[in-house]
Parts: sequence; C-alpha cells; structure tokens
Amino acid sequence: MALKAFVEVKPDSHFSIHNLPYGVFKHVGGAITTPRPGVAIGDYVLDLSSIHSAGLFDGPLISNSDCFHQPNLNKFLELGRPAWKEARATLQKLLSSAEPALQNNASLRQKALLPMDEVEMLLPIAIGDYTDFFSSLHHAKNCGTIFRGPENPVNPNWFHLPIAYHGRASSIVISGTDIIRPRGQGHPSANSPPYFGPSRKLDFELEMAAVVGPGNELGKPIDVNEAADHIFGAVLMNDWSARDIQAWEYVPLGPFLGKSFGTTISPWIVTLDALEQFACDAPNQIHLPLPYLAEKVSKNYDISLEVRIKPAGQEESFTVTRSNFKHLYWTLTQQLAHHTVNGCNLRPGDLLGTGTISGPEPDSYGCLLELTWNGTKELSLGKTTRKFLEDGDEVIISGCCKGNGYNVGFGTCSGKIIPSLP
Amino acid sequence: MALKAFVEVKPDSHFSIHNLPYGVFKHVGGAITTPRPGVAIGDYVLDLSSIHSAGLFDGPLISNSDCFHQPNLNKFLELGRPAWKEARATLQKLLSSAEPALQNNASLRQKALLPMDEVEMLLPIAIGDYTDFFSSLHHAKNCGTIFRGPENPVNPNWFHLPIAYHGRASSIVISGTDIIRPRGQGHPSANSPPYFGPSRKLDFELEMAAVVGPGNELGKPIDVNEAADHIFGAVLMNDWSARDIQAWEYVPLGPFLGKSFGTTISPWIVTLDALEQFACDAPNQIHLPLPYLAEKVSKNYDISLEVRIKPAGQEESFTVTRSNFKHLYWTLTQQLAHHTVNGCNLRPGDLLGTGTISGPEPDSYGCLLELTWNGTKELSLGKTTRKFLEDGDEVIISGCCKGNGYNVGFGTCSGKIIPSLP
Repeated sequence: MALKAFVEVKPDSHFSIHNLPYGVFKHVGGAITTPRPGVAIGDYVLDLSSIHSAGLFDGPLISNSDCFHQPNLNKFLELGRPAWKEARATLQKLLSSAEPALQNNASLRQKALLPMDEVEMLLPIAIGDYTDFFSSLHHAKNCGTIFRGPENPVNPNWFHLPIAYHGRASSIVISGTDIIRPRGQGHPSANSPPYFGPSRKLDFELEMAAVVGPGNELGKPIDVNEAADHIFGAVLMNDWSARDIQAWEYVPLGPFLGKSFGTTISPWIVTLDALEQFACDAPNQIHLPLPYLAEKVSKNYDISLEVRIKPAGQEESFTVTRSNFKHLYWTLTQQLAHHTVNGCNLRPGDLLGTGTISGPEPDSYGCLLELTWNGTKELSLGKTTRKFLEDGDEVIISGCCKGNGYNVGFGTCSGKIIPSLP
Repeated sequence: MALKAFVEVKPDSHFSIHNLPYGVFKHVGGAITTPRPGVAIGDYVLDLSSIHSAGLFDGPLISNSDCFHQPNLNKFLELGRPAWKEARATLQKLLSSAEPALQNNASLRQKALLPMDEVEMLLPIAIGDYTDFFSSLHHAKNCGTIFRGPENPVNPNWFHLPIAYHGRASSIVISGTDIIRPRGQGHPSANSPPYFGPSRKLDFELEMAAVVGPGNELGKPIDVNEAADHIFGAVLMNDWSARDIQAWEYVPLGPFLGKSFGTTISPWIVTLDALEQFACDAPNQIHLPLPYLAEKVSKNYDISLEVRIKPAGQEESFTVTRSNFKHLYWTLTQQLAHHTVNGCNLRPGDLLGTGTISGPEPDSYGCLLELTWNGTKELSLGKTTRKFLEDGDEVIISGCCKGNGYNVGFGTCSGKIIPSLP
C-alpha cells in the first residue's frame, strides 16, 4: 500500500511524506518563539521539539538526544546516518494515515503541526566553513570560452580534480533575504584605471549545496566510498556574483569580494535518504580518476532545477533556465573525499556548494554570464530585457524530484536585489 | 616613573607590563580545568576569571560583563575598544609594583597568577571566517618572478586593491600542534599525468593575522578611517603551504587543499593598544589608492619577525629569515576596509592574515619558496640542507617589538611536520 500522509498534501506540493526535509523555524506569534527544528509536510511544519517532548520519538538514538531542542540542526547532523534513518522512519510512520499516535491526538496536532504561513524560516545550520566547487563541465566550458576563447576553455587540472575555493560563511543568508547590490572595484579595459562603485554586472548562480554530517578529525581523510555517510542532505543555493568585481580581483587567488556580499540557501534540507530513489548514474569521466576519487558507485540525482526572474516593477516572473543536478561531472562524494584527502577537517553543518549547475543546452545554463554570454546578448523577460540583474529584480530558484504521484522538492530559494549604498 | 610589574619580568621576556597579550588557557592539574582567558606577564599567566570574580575589574564595562568567564575571547572582542582600554588600564594598574590590591593578596595571587609551564594554551578565539591577504610587495614580486618570469611579476590589480582569498577556518590550530604532511595531487610537467601522494614541496609562510573585534552587519561597510576600532590585536601565523598541490589546483579559483591541511597561530594576541607605541609609517603606495582605501594615517608596526627551523634529528635550530611587519604594502586597516566595502560582514574573532611577510633582502624572505627560489638552491641548516620541509622539521616563528628596556612580544608560533598517512 502506498505511503500516504494524514495531513493534506496537494498534488503539486514539494513536501510529500516521501520527502520530509528538515529546517529551523520560529513560530511567529506562537507560544514558543525560539528557533526549533521542524520538517515540512504539505502546507505544514511539524515541530520536532514538541514531538520529542511528547515522547513520540521512540528509537534509541533520537529519544536519548536533545538534538531537536536546539536552535539549529548541527547536533542532529553530528549524530550521523543511523540517527537520521531512525528519525525519518519515526516521522514517516507518525505522519502516515495508518498511524493514530499523532493523527488522533488533537492537542498535540494543534501544538506541533503549524501552518507554514505562520512560521518564519531561519538558517537551518550554523555553518563553520563553506566551500564552493566548480563541478559542472558545461559551466566550466562556457566560462572558459567567454574569458579565454574556444581553443582550450577548460584548464587541464579540471578533469583530474574537483576544483573548489573557500567561500565566505558569514554572509550566507536564508531565502527571502534582500541582497544589497555590492560596491567594489571594476576594470573595464587594460588601459584605464579601475573604477569604484555599485557592481554593473550582478548575476545569480544556480547551485545546490551538500550539508555535511559528522565530518572528520584533522588529518583523517574520508574515503570516497564512505563519503555518502557524511552528507546529510542538500539545499538549493544562489551564489550571487558580481562579475565585474570578480573579473578584476580573482587573479591569482580566486574569487573574493565578487562573491562574499551574500549567498542564499533554501530553508529546507532534503535528506540524501529522501533523494535516494532519484539517484542516477553520474556522467562518465573523461580521464580515469586517481584511485582516491574512483568510487564504486558514481551517483548523481535527477533533480529538476529552474530559475525564474521577477523583474523590477512586474508582477509576473519568467523562467530563464531549466537545468538538472544530474548534469554535474564531479559527484558530491568525490567532492567530499577530495576536500578531506589532504587531512582537512569537515565539521557538522559545513556547506559544500556544487558550483553553477549548467546543462548542455543554452536554455539550461545556470547564470546570466552564460545565458547572455557576458552581456553580449539580451534575455527577454516579458516587457523588458536583461543582460545582468537590475535593482528590484527577484531571482527564484526551485528544485524538485518527480516521484510516482508525489514530489520530493526543495521549495524555493529566492532573493531580491536592492540598491547599493549611496 | 617607569611602569614596572611586581611580578618578575626577565629582560628578554616578551611579556612586559607594557604588553599584556590575551590568550585562553587550561590549568593542567589545577582546581579549575575549563578553558579561561588570561594575560601573559613575565613567566606567568594571570587568570582573568579569578580577577573578575574577586571584583578587581572596577570599570563599568568589564565589571558588568561575563566576558572573562568564557572559553574563548569572542565576547570580550565583541565589546569593542572602550572595554579593551578599560581592561588594559585595570590590568596594568593591578600588576604594577605601586599597586597593592593583587600584589599583597597572597591567596588571590596564588590562585590567579599561574606559572606558564603549568598551563596549556588553547585557541584563544572561535574563528568564524579566516581570510588571507597577499599584502607584501616583496613576496608578490618574488612569487611572480619565480612562476612567470621577471618582466611583469606582479599583476596590475595588486597595486589597486589588497588581494585576498578565503581560507579554511576549521584547520586553524594552536602553536605546538603537529602538522601532518598533506597528501594530494601534484603535476610535475605539462606532458605527464598528475600524481597522488605526500606533498613533495611542503613550506611554511611567515605571516601575522589581525583579530577582528566588533565587526559589522551584512551590507554595512566599515570606513577605512574607523577600521582600527575593529581590530583587537594580532597574532603570529604560519600558513603552511604544499607548493606542489597549490601549483596544480589554484587556477582559476585560488589556493584550496594546498593550504587547508593546517594553519598555526600563536596563543597570545598582542593588542593594537600595546602595539601603538611601535607604530611607523606604511610604505608609500605606488598608485594613489581609490578613495575608500585612502586613509588619513597609514600605519604599520615595527615588529621584528624571525623564523627558525629545527631540522629533524638535530637539537639546534637555525634562523632562516629575519623580516619585519613594517614591510607590508597594504595596511591592516586597508585590508579590513576593503574586505567590507562590498557589504561583507565580519564577526568577532574573524582572522585576517597578512599574507607572507617578506622583506626586501634575500635573508628576509618569508617562505622557503622564496628562500630556495622554488627549490633551485639549498638552504644550509648546520650539518644539513633544505629545499623544502622534511618530516621531523620544526618551524618556529617569533615576533617582538623592542621598547626602551622592555619587550612587547608575541612569543612563538611553532609546529613540527610529521609523516603523511600511509
């Protein structure tokens, strides 16, 4: 018999009982207003602290932990996959139409099942370090072609290791947070001095990010075949980028102020356990990876991704790209194994961004740099056009896996550009 | 009358009453073994939690704060310069030979003044984000010459902005922690495939790092002329670098695994207030900086820096370089103002590394890459020589300002290389 929730889940909802993504919320105007972990189900958020206090987590790992009475998910992430699986099994049972414990307990339901429009979603994790990879070959090729021409668009190292840089953790914000247009230096041509001012080439980047679970001690790498046990789940991410600032600053030490003004993530972390049924083969790799990156199973996930822009002053939003997580060349597990192979330690709640997820076709490119070919052509958005983002533009990323009669989705990850400081 | 401590301070001690650097320690085998803030004086550590509990912090800002009953200094850093000045004034008075309150209280002295060899020093701050700059022109010139030749060794952007990259916060360790030789990919020549194994070009980097105080909200830059109020003090730093891993991975997104296996800092944070009397003019900048980087007073500090190597199997250590903080081209305040000009938020305890501090002369270069010119010549260390670091080598950085009859020093920042994993 198909698993069915006793809570109404509309057919287009991202939050079926097969999903149960984790987030952290505040119940605006509720009895308890401190941040607490919850899972999404239909149009509701289930308050995990209430469920735990009511004694309904009956498995040994969760019942003895205070991880759901914390203001973030880090303690839960630290517990590792056995605890994650236990919590998921408990929650799927409690929310199923066949199970009376929560369904028939009106006072607990009232307390623990909160309408989504009554809660405010917060950053679900305290992020110690944030790393951003560069794992889409299509994105690497397009950027290389734009900046260096079509002969050798991708550097030789790219095919041998998942290239990455350290990102800025402090400026990661939750979906819905306005993004102030950054100011910085740009350099229009070789013969002119740099200028200073609001970025003239503000862009989004369609990404996803893995959320690290237990992590590792300094000096103890994680084997690529055990890396999945260190990934709790994934979020949508918009790695906002000021292309003019980035272009001038990035040689030789990489992106800095062109990125660090803000990075938006979705409030819901979809677990790897929920994504498992949407696993698919990763693309064949052109060079045989070195043994430490050669995994027994090389897995991607079939997650449809879409970016819409709601231009300033318009009510309508327009889809500007449709991509898919499955296009990534380097898998999440390869990224994580590579990250630790030098001994670097990962901590619970660390974020590993995939880099821009571009697909092979022009309408699947993951940022305006590619979609407008660095501003050389315009993107049509209803009555207006864009080369880069303008003040008032809102960018909305969504991601969803289609099951048989249900969705396992990420909701949205959005942000609106507001004008630069004077 | 000259300020003099009632505690004995030997003439060569770094920790005179003019210094009073802050750290966090555990009293090994003491009554209280939890981490607590302390200041160094002579061969002693003064336990600030005991002084606070005894009511001897009589200024309004510190007496009403629990900042010295924390396991790190972050809460103290958040209070800002008025509180830092108040604490410094109180401590200089309490420790002076003219003041009886602590000097004549034998039981408090017994409890609060702990011999340095009885305590274990810990990371003094919880580091949210760590940024590493590239602020020495001599270092930039040498690296550029080594890798790209002597024509245009320094990229044009370098002269217009303090170049930096985000570093890895999780792998910052306290002085004395062993460093495991990292494994990773290297690429000896264009026609060969990459290899994987222990780094063959392990290096130190002589750096210092500023410790951020109150910081700023996302979207609210800090003016360069107010930046000093956001810098609590500085530490010595060794930004260990695997040159072979770095050389292969760093295009186009910058250093990653070549650095993230470990970064060592000294336990003692010397405050900007203690350094003030050693302030000196920063070098003239070749291009007039853009207005947001043009500061009214452009200040460096005259801090003598030295690196010694104690080679594996030898009892003696050998000085390999003598440099000085005053050689930096971009000042700490310019670094900080640049970091926030795009709106990026800094948080208390963030670390801003200076980058390798090389001086103009070959015996003042700040890393082996420069000292051995990328391994093309050997450095003599007593009975042995080095091109890069070998297992068992210990690297000891020290830094000190010479006052009139006293020192304001940083102590040492050391680490020993231990063999790679099998």
